[in-house]
Amino acid sequence: MKAVRLNQYEQRPAVEDVPEPQITGPMDVIVRIGGAGLCRTDLHLVEGQWASRVGDVLPFTLGHENAGWVQEVGSAVEHLAPGDTVILHPQATCGLCRFCRAGDDMHCTGTNFFPGLNTDGGMADFLKTGARAVVKIDPNLQPADVAALADAGLTAYHAVKKASPQLYPGTRAVVIGAGGLGHIGIQSLKALTPAEIIVVDRSEDALKLAQEFGADHAVVADGSQVEKVQELTDGNGAEVVIDFVGERGAEHDAWGMTRRAGSHFVIGYGGAVNVETIDLISTERNVIGNLVGTFNDLAELMILAAQGKVKLHTQTYPLSAVNDAMDDLDGGRLHGRGILVPDQAA
Amino acid sequence: MKAVRLNQYEQRPAVEDVPEPQITGPMDVIVRIGGAGLCRTDLHLVEGQWASRVGDVLPFTLGHENAGWVQEVGSAVEHLAPGDTVILHPQATCGLCRFCRAGDDMHCTGTNFFPGLNTDGGMADFLKTGARAVVKIDPNLQPADVAALADAGLTAYHAVKKASPQLYPGTRAVVIGAGGLGHIGIQSLKALTPAEIIVVDRSEDALKLAQEFGADHAVVADGSQVEKVQELTDGNGAEVVIDFVGERGAEHDAWGMTRRAGSHFVIGYGGAVNVETIDLISTERNVIGNLVGTFNDLAELMILAAQGKVKLHTQTYPLSAVNDAMDDLDGGRLHGRGILVPDQAA
Amino acid sequence: MKAVRLNQYEQRPAVEDVPEPQITGPMDVIVRIGGAGLCRTDLHLVEGQWASRVGDVLPFTLGHENAGWVQEVGSAVEHLAPGDTVILHPQATCGLCRFCRAGDDMHCTGTNFFPGLNTDGGMADFLKTGARAVVKIDPNLQPADVAALADAGLTAYHAVKKASPQLYPGTRAVVIGAGGLGHIGIQSLKALTPAEIIVVDRSEDALKLAQEFGADHAVVADGSQVEKVQELTDGNGAEVVIDFVGERGAEHDAWGMTRRAGSHFVIGYGGAVNVETIDLISTERNVIGNLVGTFNDLAELMILAAQGKVKLHTQTYPLSAVNDAMDDLDGGRLHGRGILVPDQAA
Amino acid sequence: MKAVRLNQYEQRPAVEDVPEPQITGPMDVIVRIGGAGLCRTDLHLVEGQWASRVGDVLPFTLGHENAGWVQEVGSAVEHLAPGDTVILHPQATCGLCRFCRAGDDMHCTGTNFFPGLNTDGGMADFLKTGARAVVKIDPNLQPADVAALADAGLTAYHAVKKASPQLYPGTRAVVIGAGGLGHIGIQSLKALTPAEIIVVDRSEDALKLAQEFGADHAVVADGSQVEKVQELTDGNGAEVVIDFVGERGAEHDAWGMTRRAGSHFVIGYGGAVNVETIDLISTERNVIGNLVGTFNDLAELMILAAQGKVKLHTQTYPLSAVNDAMDDLDGGRLHGRGILVPDQAA
Repeated sequence: MKAVRLNQYEQRPAVEDVPEPQITGPMDVIVRIGGAGLCRTDLHLVEGQWASRVGDVLPFTLGHENAGWVQEVGSAVEHLAPGDTVILHPQATCGLCRFCRAGDDMHCTGTNFFPGLNTDGGMADFLKTGARAVVKIDPNLQPADVAALADAGLTAYHAVKKASPQLYPGTRAVVIGAGGLGHIGIQSLKALTPAEIIVVDRSEDALKLAQEFGADHAVVADGSQVEKVQELTDGNGAEVVIDFVGERGAEHDAWGMTRRAGSHFVIGYGGAVNVETIDLISTERNVIGNLVGTFNDLAELMILAAQGKVKLHTQTYPLSAVNDAMDDLDGGRLHGRGILVPDQAA
Repeated sequence: MKAVRLNQYEQRPAVEDVPEPQITGPMDVIVRIGGAGLCRTDLHLVEGQWASRVGDVLPFTLGHENAGWVQEVGSAVEHLAPGDTVILHPQATCGLCRFCRAGDDMHCTGTNFFPGLNTDGGMADFLKTGARAVVKIDPNLQPADVAALADAGLTAYHAVKKASPQLYPGTRAVVIGAGGLGHIGIQSLKALTPAEIIVVDRSEDALKLAQEFGADHAVVADGSQVEKVQELTDGNGAEVVIDFVGERGAEHDAWGMTRRAGSHFVIGYGGAVNVETIDLISTERNVIGNLVGTFNDLAELMILAAQGKVKLHTQTYPLSAVNDAMDDLDGGRLHGRGILVPDQAA
Repeated sequence: MKAVRLNQYEQRPAVEDVPEPQITGPMDVIVRIGGAGLCRTDLHLVEGQWASRVGDVLPFTLGHENAGWVQEVGSAVEHLAPGDTVILHPQATCGLCRFCRAGDDMHCTGTNFFPGLNTDGGMADFLKTGARAVVKIDPNLQPADVAALADAGLTAYHAVKKASPQLYPGTRAVVIGAGGLGHIGIQSLKALTPAEIIVVDRSEDALKLAQEFGADHAVVADGSQVEKVQELTDGNGAEVVIDFVGERGAEHDAWGMTRRAGSHFVIGYGGAVNVETIDLISTERNVIGNLVGTFNDLAELMILAAQGKVKLHTQTYPLSAVNDAMDDLDGGRLHGRGILVPDQAA
Repeated sequence: MKAVRLNQYEQRPAVEDVPEPQITGPMDVIVRIGGAGLCRTDLHLVEGQWASRVGDVLPFTLGHENAGWVQEVGSAVEHLAPGDTVILHPQATCGLCRFCRAGDDMHCTGTNFFPGLNTDGGMADFLKTGARAVVKIDPNLQPADVAALADAGLTAYHAVKKASPQLYPGTRAVVIGAGGLGHIGIQSLKALTPAEIIVVDRSEDALKLAQEFGADHAVVADGSQVEKVQELTDGNGAEVVIDFVGERGAEHDAWGMTRRAGSHFVIGYGGAVNVETIDLISTERNVIGNLVGTFNDLAELMILAAQGKVKLHTQTYPLSAVNDAMDDLDGGRLHGRGILVPDQAA
């Protein structure tokens, strides 16, 4: 089958013929890919930025945001059948450690299996994963439409769900960064909470789109953004600030926009949060880390997608055009999320 | 009456004769002081470090950790009567703002009344406060024994109570700093949770005392403390780290001792928390600010004190010896908390 | 001023001239009434059903769902000013007991002051209450439009808020009873949760209106309602069932519609919940009592009203027509909630 | 091997030779039994009371509270090894349904596998279960000492853990029924909460033992028990009442002992909870069902056992004396929990 192979860091991935994956374990599942999301992490993988973290795994197939249809299942898999429409949680967890037993899939201590990051991913005709990673979804959903929710969308939804108990009527949530994650964040906030939503971004176009997705206020990040959010919140700041950027100053802005007794949720990364302890305690604010999301989070997000409450702008490319897609992403020409689909389906 | 007056910053407070406070409002309460705790904040007040925050309030009477007996009540106060044994929450709140209505006294937006910090405090024979600050306690408790729980103890209890949902059997809580707050923290952890307690301090004596108060493991802060906590936690770190120091490196140690998916509670101050966003998200850890505690927290702590579950080492001084007490505190000669009592009671 | 007086049980109330209320305490507030909701409890009061509970309080002015504008405040009231648009929590609480200090106003142990139930209420030109009962609202809201939210609406909102943590995407909430409370319940569910809403009522008209307010499914209570809800929930029942009826079989239906590990919220009353302990434990279901709501709940509901997310159908009557309004309510001719307004405003 | 076989309802079980269980699936685990708890459910099984619920499963081996050592594991089991000391959760769950993915093992919708209830249990030399049921415990624990915690103890711990957020200092928890479950309940309350514990039972001996296990007050159930609990709680009732009896009037007492805004936890069964809706709402009380416990609950309880915080009185019998043990249990001659151990180990 065709697959987008990363053979060497700092070299463009190549579309090559590789053997189809085979069932080898009782809980294995092979999925026919309908779409694989392309994200900035893929560019970083190619650049070798993750090499030290994922170890010596080259060559492998890219693609960590995957959806499709079940093709074949292992001998012990009873809850899935060929033909089921599915999206894949990024991690096939052990199901046996304390974290898995509490539903906190992303803290699983029993496995280290991340298709598209340290083993063969979904930019291919087929993908092999474990049964615990497979979320069955509404058959009316198109895998190519939802694939990017598997990781990026899940991360946004997970943080919003964690923040939601703090967001009662009359509160404000600030979303910093109106890109793909931010859009899912805004729609998740709309679906889960009655909070007023303030979105902050450098791009006026992105802000406009954010408002179409439900943001109540848009603030251009032109240097006055902290002040403007303070104005929109009666000088108090917002109960919840969700920072999808996490670098280039956004991580400082986020803290400055957070209200007394409020929480600053960190999702984007690159920078550092640097806060004086006197400031933390005299206002009793919190800094909350956020990591992907649980299996149940992903299942819930798929319900919102099936109900039409969460939508994603996408642009599809055939697998064979993966480098065009990467160039478009890198060059800022990709509007919405890029989705790679097998050539015959494209 | 006698009172410890701060007349000018950077000058020693003086014990002077001042008029007794009078009831002027319907919700006023006058308390005959049984004991007023002395803490490092008093030294900082004298040094003028708080001048910019509290404004032009000189001269005033020191003492923000107060307990005693009700002397007289305003016309609208029906739930208190002269003779009631009481401890005073540091803040007389408005009772009407959103925060007060949710029980979050320390975020009250309606008042700015802090006896001993910006108005006359309890290092005196009598103190005036508002009815909402007054916690009725077991008449068998001696005010001089519990006064220091009004602020320092309350702060420790509040943080422990917030942390307790994370502390199920098998978890570990690290307490950094085995001073007065740390001791209350350890006893509160023992009373509220089944967690194993690891205490970290530079002083072997303090650690010994901490173990008498219930700590399961003692770690000397000699440079190897992060490593030692990691060893005691199977290399994972602790689910909860409560930092009562917040400066001189403790604030960095605290983060380094915190487990994946765990929380670092900040209480002490002076330094800064500086954490890379990638580190926050890849481990999904939290930094939690903590500020004093609620009225109900203080009432709960007083129950623990009445049940003998929380004890405090104290050393009493007559009001007239306030400067000896301050010198002993500053010089490290004060073991346990210093408590000032009216001369006739001393 | 004019007031609707209940002079004797089982006799029609009379509109009489009574003296205007006067400020007598420092925290008193006098409100010029803009509207007072009429509800079934008023009929029961007239019938004497509450006599044994409220004691010998005749004669008094009816009206326990009140909104209007501040007319005058006591000497210690600083956060309200004449002219403020306000709605009144049904209970003027003490602000000092454990429950008040935790925000649980309806469990206040310090007062027994319920205007319109055991002291003069709001079917009058003016009403006196305590400052702690007064919620300042958006001046664009008309008191007559929102008055009925003060008690009936608050009760519905409070139960929905308690249920909301159980209502993630993919769950179902059943609302039994599509009357005034049910409509607020449906709109509150829409505002606070992503749950699918199933409404059950005997009246097809009421169901139609409920669907306009946001219900996803309507089930006629014709004897097949439990079965139909089971069908709509894949044979499992709903995670949350909110019973606004509580009698005539609804209380049994509610339990039968509740899913394993789910909760049956009781609001309406008259009947009894009768469940075998084996049934409670083998499915680990809960029965949850609900009582009015907190001050902050009412403030939140007023935000939803100001945002247009919660609306109420009302029919206004002048005070002098109170007996027509009661007849209409009793005779089923009152569509929406009846609101009494001072004659000059009607 | 030897096994206690139930061949026909209403006939005594027989100790017979049966083949040892064999690994047939990749996630199977075979455990060498160290002890199997005997409980009243076993008597009911023999009497055929469960026949209609568990279906046509005769003959099978009794024993649903099991602990021992891993003997052999299936091909896909990597986290367990022969020799590991283990206790077995009563249910081998699927690990794939929504409930399992949230940690709510007892609501698993994917399996119906309960050793000792509907398939071969642990009153035998060996037992086969699934890997997801196996909790690894401290090798210093003796399986025969802890086996009865697998179901009875787990149920008590689970309810206490659910109740613990309501049990802050100053609150009271009532434990109705001072038998085996009650004792674990009391010790779990002591370990997890600062609540004052009131225990209610008909037997003075049982109450005495309960006080040794940590109960603060003992109330003889002689008809005055509701009144006595009211006296011990200042006429308010207790914030939490845990009813381990659930029949013969205890289920009514429990409600009558529950405080306004409090919760009545149901564990024992046989009777019915019958409460007027007016009573539920006017006091805003709750009735909470409780079912066994989660895998993580059992792991936590085993930590408490290893720390010596939870102990169980036991009386061991060899497998061959199973009918003596049952007679002793039925005749009230069994003090503590009966534990069956393989003959060679007895």
